[in-house]
Amino acid sequence: MSYGLLKGKKGIIFGALNNQSIAWKVAERCHEEGAEFILSNAPIAMRMGELDDLAAQTGSEIIPADASSMEDLEKLFARAEEKFGKLDFILHSIGMSVNIRKGKAYTDLNYDFLEKGWDVSAVSFHKVMKTAWDKNIMNEWGSILALTYIAAQRTFPNYSDMADNKSYLESIARSFGYFWGERKVRVNTISQSPVMTKAGAGVKGIEGFFNFADDMSPLGNADAVDCANYCVSMFSDLTRKVTMQNLFHDGGFSNTGVSNKIIEKFE
Amino acid sequence: MSYGLLKGKKGIIFGALNNQSIAWKVAERCHEEGAEFILSNAPIAMRMGELDDLAAQTGSEIIPADASSMEDLEKLFARAEEKFGKLDFILHSIGMSVNIRKGKAYTDLNYDFLEKGWDVSAVSFHKVMKTAWDKNIMNEWGSILALTYIAAQRTFPNYSDMADNKSYLESIARSFGYFWGERKVRVNTISQSPVMTKAGAGVKGIEGFFNFADDMSPLGNADAVDCANYCVSMFSDLTRKVTMQNLFHDGGFSNTGVSNKIIEKFE
Amino acid sequence: MSYGLLKGKKGIIFGALNNQSIAWKVAERCHEEGAEFILSNAPIAMRMGELDDLAAQTGSEIIPADASSMEDLEKLFARAEEKFGKLDFILHSIGMSVNIRKGKAYTDLNYDFLEKGWDVSAVSFHKVMKTAWDKNIMNEWGSILALTYIAAQRTFPNYSDMADNKSYLESIARSFGYFWGERKVRVNTISQSPVMTKAGAGVKGIEGFFNFADDMSPLGNADAVDCANYCVSMFSDLTRKVTMQNLFHDGGFSNTGVSNKIIEKFE
Amino acid sequence: MSYGLLKGKKGIIFGALNNQSIAWKVAERCHEEGAEFILSNAPIAMRMGELDDLAAQTGSEIIPADASSMEDLEKLFARAEEKFGKLDFILHSIGMSVNIRKGKAYTDLNYDFLEKGWDVSAVSFHKVMKTAWDKNIMNEWGSILALTYIAAQRTFPNYSDMADNKSYLESIARSFGYFWGERKVRVNTISQSPVMTKAGAGVKGIEGFFNFADDMSPLGNADAVDCANYCVSMFSDLTRKVTMQNLFHDGGFSNTGVSNKIIEKFE
Repeated sequence: MSYGLLKGKKGIIFGALNNQSIAWKVAERCHEEGAEFILSNAPIAMRMGELDDLAAQTGSEIIPADASSMEDLEKLFARAEEKFGKLDFILHSIGMSVNIRKGKAYTDLNYDFLEKGWDVSAVSFHKVMKTAWDKNIMNEWGSILALTYIAAQRTFPNYSDMADNKSYLESIARSFGYFWGERKVRVNTISQSPVMTKAGAGVKGIEGFFNFADDMSPLGNADAVDCANYCVSMFSDLTRKVTMQNLFHDGGFSNTGVSNKIIEKFE
Repeated sequence: MSYGLLKGKKGIIFGALNNQSIAWKVAERCHEEGAEFILSNAPIAMRMGELDDLAAQTGSEIIPADASSMEDLEKLFARAEEKFGKLDFILHSIGMSVNIRKGKAYTDLNYDFLEKGWDVSAVSFHKVMKTAWDKNIMNEWGSILALTYIAAQRTFPNYSDMADNKSYLESIARSFGYFWGERKVRVNTISQSPVMTKAGAGVKGIEGFFNFADDMSPLGNADAVDCANYCVSMFSDLTRKVTMQNLFHDGGFSNTGVSNKIIEKFE
Repeated sequence: MSYGLLKGKKGIIFGALNNQSIAWKVAERCHEEGAEFILSNAPIAMRMGELDDLAAQTGSEIIPADASSMEDLEKLFARAEEKFGKLDFILHSIGMSVNIRKGKAYTDLNYDFLEKGWDVSAVSFHKVMKTAWDKNIMNEWGSILALTYIAAQRTFPNYSDMADNKSYLESIARSFGYFWGERKVRVNTISQSPVMTKAGAGVKGIEGFFNFADDMSPLGNADAVDCANYCVSMFSDLTRKVTMQNLFHDGGFSNTGVSNKIIEKFE
Repeated sequence: MSYGLLKGKKGIIFGALNNQSIAWKVAERCHEEGAEFILSNAPIAMRMGELDDLAAQTGSEIIPADASSMEDLEKLFARAEEKFGKLDFILHSIGMSVNIRKGKAYTDLNYDFLEKGWDVSAVSFHKVMKTAWDKNIMNEWGSILALTYIAAQRTFPNYSDMADNKSYLESIARSFGYFWGERKVRVNTISQSPVMTKAGAGVKGIEGFFNFADDMSPLGNADAVDCANYCVSMFSDLTRKVTMQNLFHDGGFSNTGVSNKIIEKFE
């Protein structure tokens, strides 16, 4: 598919790690639709990653930045301004829980780990927007997106403190989205089906859960390419008046109470 | 339990059929808490029922009424006025889908059946409130409640057109609740766990579903007595400023994305 | 704008009346994006309308149909099948309350008027989908949309029984959407800002309300052209895994508790 | 009012400062209903407060504790265990934003202030529950409550980072509530109307907003005594199966799109 939907648009894409990442697919689709962008990720993540391939494929520049560091963000946005002038879109696809990595149960969280995960997964979204706000770098009708998960509304026991981080992230989208309205910029979150990425693989019971979600969703789980397409629509000029929303992109999971496939297992 | 929470309060309870009915348990608990009330149900339902026992046990009068008939409701409320003067509470626990009874799939609804079920299950709530409104029969700080189900928000495939009826019912609670505010009366719905009543037993796959809901709810399914207690709290003076709300009474089902018990079945 | 997003796609658009109608703008935008479609509206509405101009402009055929009549719908879809074979999209933009037209307050509804409005505004959506379902006329990854309003969630006193109709309509989208999942078709509703259409003009206090909504929305009210663009995105292949959702397209109104413009009026 | 609803129940009430505090009213009402409890607040808050009067009036002990300090909480719960054995209820009524106090706009947050406010207002709720969890101090069918505000769902521009804190707090209630289910304990939040407390008085534009909320709510704003009554119902045995919910106690504000009083100002 290619429609030229993002022709002439410039942006920053945070969080591409490898070709299973949603952000990776978003970058590919944005490139196909005519956008130019900078790729950014944490320096530590990039050492493990294959981001150079994506940069080559999409003609993009890579600027490492720890999204929880105002200093790093300042440098990143300064380079973006130098390169592009103004921006049209930003994708925030960043999340990490030290408690999950270390196997700490939700009832036994370590509060230093908690603070670290909150800062990286949620506050970073505020920091990204504050940097963009202070530079007044967004064009009118620009679009800012972050990826989230339905654990922000309902408990998935193994998702642990990431649920709380995602609630905070979605709240930032609304809170900051209100102010971006003055500048005719929209801010939304996409609440995506579980995807078998490297990040997801660390969560306990993820396979059983992945299958449960697939069986519960009338259209099945949405995959990373589906999500990339949806992000393109949200960056395009077709969705200018959608703001401060959390948009479920999940094959219907969120509004399905139970499916016949699930009931069969209980009969 | 008995606290005298409803001492001196008068009401009407719609929908008690037999001792498995939620409305039956509500009547018992309201009686224990000191309330007086009229019991009402459809003439046809009462022929099958054992309502006389409940009336005797609670010192109540039975007034048959088809809640979709303004004429029947007029007579019922006239009698209530004669007996009690003003009222403090009303419970609407009425629901019926001809399409479900006749085994019509949601994709193959009969529209005459649909209209009948909508009228009985949802519009009846408006008719009850309109009759009460026209008679100006509610005391200040009175409380009007209807029972509903989470299918109004999320699809449960076998719940069929009752889902749409419950959405309409909940909307009536908000819409009419706004106007009742002028008279200091509150209107709410309680969204209750599945209960193995006679009505529930007709729904296809209900047992598998009942177990699924129980496994999904951190406190397990709420039963009819639990629900009666919750109704008592909503009729009492402790909840005067809660209005136009849909209150989930479901052991946590509504905000649980998945439970460990469910995941285990998928691993 | 024109991206060829709907190239080769076929559909039916219900509810275009005059050039202020949202459905009119949707038809124009779908045409620009390469779609072909049939225009349909109630015979009585078309007598007042200027639909011929739109048909000429977009190369469309007009098939009158009362969307609450299974017979009319049957004929319409038979013609659509003859003309297009399979369909890719349907827009339902139909709503009418006799109670509002006749100036009946919500506390004083006429129940015959209520039934008529419910049938036309909400059940018609089920009838449209049932006709399409029985004919198995939708292509895989087709998209069915209906327009709705936030009164389905929160009370706007003058919106009266249309609020309840819209709740029912949104519930139908979820309920039927579940089953359409089997056929890889999605069903969603768009909850649109108030628009000063001919239909809207009949609602009491609409101007004050229109201004209130505009002042409350960080991006201002979304207009009919904005809505048409959003509909295009929902008919396109970019949004295939979004289903059973109610999507707010309202400049942020739905998630704004209060705006500074509103607070100023209260200080 | 006094019904003996909490006879024999033991608890901890966090956050009473002076006789305008909601927690103060909760303590009074819990005492009237027969409960015994410990009062706790931050050492610094108590220096300003009149908590001794409340302690004398309700026969309670005061244990100062910074609710963001695990050490303080440990001591508090150790004393509670010594005094009461097991507990039946906990109220968390704690919130503070340094950014608001210092007049920092949401677009210009100080991130050290942000972390402090998040820790005190939201993480403290996890810390309280973790301490209770580790001590296994809650009786079966105990009830844990926190107070919150609708800014967690919709933006109120002057509520700033407290909105994000409240979202996080509500998420903690769901996340931890899931696990408390195993022990038959429920966890909920009450989303309360604005109240003219000392804390509230610091928020910019609060008076205009207070009046707006009152005009928007069909029953008017709920006050601190109303809230105390609602808390009593949630601590009582009448609400055992309500868990992981956010309960709006707001005179209908949350589900009112606009009121006639508001529209009049825009005509």
